[in-house]
Amino acid sequence: MQLFVGNIQGNFAEISGDESQHFSKVLRGKTGQELAITDGKGTMAKGIVLKINSKSVEVELVEIQENFEIRPYKIHIAIAPTKNMERMEFLLEKATEIGIDEITFLKTFHSERKNINLERSRKILLSAVKQSLKAYIPEIHDLVKFTDFIKKNHSATKLIAHCDSDFERKEFHKIIQPENDYLILIGPEGDFSKEEIQLAEENGFRGISLGNQRLRTETAALNSVFGLNWINN
Amino acid sequence: MQLFVGNIQGNFAEISGDESQHFSKVLRGKTGQELAITDGKGTMAKGIVLKINSKSVEVELVEIQENFEIRPYKIHIAIAPTKNMERMEFLLEKATEIGIDEITFLKTFHSERKNINLERSRKILLSAVKQSLKAYIPEIHDLVKFTDFIKKNHSATKLIAHCDSDFERKEFHKIIQPENDYLILIGPEGDFSKEEIQLAEENGFRGISLGNQRLRTETAALNSVFGLNWINN
Repeated sequence: MQLFVGNIQGNFAEISGDESQHFSKVLRGKTGQELAITDGKGTMAKGIVLKINSKSVEVELVEIQENFEIRPYKIHIAIAPTKNMERMEFLLEKATEIGIDEITFLKTFHSERKNINLERSRKILLSAVKQSLKAYIPEIHDLVKFTDFIKKNHSATKLIAHCDSDFERKEFHKIIQPENDYLILIGPEGDFSKEEIQLAEENGFRGISLGNQRLRTETAALNSVFGLNWINN
Repeated sequence: MQLFVGNIQGNFAEISGDESQHFSKVLRGKTGQELAITDGKGTMAKGIVLKINSKSVEVELVEIQENFEIRPYKIHIAIAPTKNMERMEFLLEKATEIGIDEITFLKTFHSERKNINLERSRKILLSAVKQSLKAYIPEIHDLVKFTDFIKKNHSATKLIAHCDSDFERKEFHKIIQPENDYLILIGPEGDFSKEEIQLAEENGFRGISLGNQRLRTETAALNSVFGLNWINN
């Protein structure tokens, strides 16, 4: 059954915008048809199409599950986007499939990319949510200055992945714990600067190493997302 | 230091083809320059450029490490390639960065793609090896019929990942063991057919599930590669 994202209110749901167009025009959906619908905030439902309007589709829900497949841990990755945006888009898709809650793009000292098409990134997340049948759309945040971001109040355990051996780094796979929330900073291709690492440490971030391998930015992020989901298996 | 792939013989190495062009034309390398070199078969060396010819570069080695970062386990993924080849290419790159030994492309009942540009795939592997500083280039095999492949003599533990609940499936993360070799079959978007799963079981493959999530073909493969490397951490 195909999954749509829409607004859910009580026993009814409304699909609008691209999702509505996709149902009525691309898939040539009909009233009476069964479909799956999520609000992207944890509710997963099954419903029957009541009415197809020109810009929306009305659905009567026959089965509603709240907190659908909710995970007892949160993963937030804050990453300096790569020059090649395709690599970031692939990360958004794969991280969503494997399980991620929040993504923030960082402007760092060695960053090569200074802008992000957030609308396009959101579409990729949406499409991955639909494809992998999830009920939560990850939160995504526009580029923010590294120095501003690390000073914010973050309740998760704070880690910074880097390759600078002048600083103490713990091995990621040895320190992570199940059912714990993590915020992990992933640097640009030229790594975080010494000043950035220092500042992160002063703000409660712990240095970690993701192994001996030299990983690309997006692979380092994927590795972290994968590891955290793995230990919670 | 940049890594090149070439032939190593005793204390000397020769870089040729694209690698030689890259050194002399793109990077404008000079004699006397230091570089890292691997034969792609486990030897990692440091050397000094002795001579730059029109189609090759001669290097004197000053440090040689055999079995460089060799892993005590082998991972072989046999996969039905996706229609969209970019997804397969991303998998080749990421799997190489994270650690894989062998990749075979499968022709299955529900396969959408019937051909592979093996030369292009090899270039992606090579580039990922260079980027992630590895000394082993993964082996890659052209499309082979599923029924032929599973009947071959494979010494690794044989698993088939599928979503068909008519067959018994073990949870992947619960059954895998460190320091063990695995061959894992990953199906096409429409999954393996019942006949294929049956036949695989008859040939010693054990059914596995990669979790509740509906994963794309390349994500299922990545998940397996990540998991096997993770438990060997």
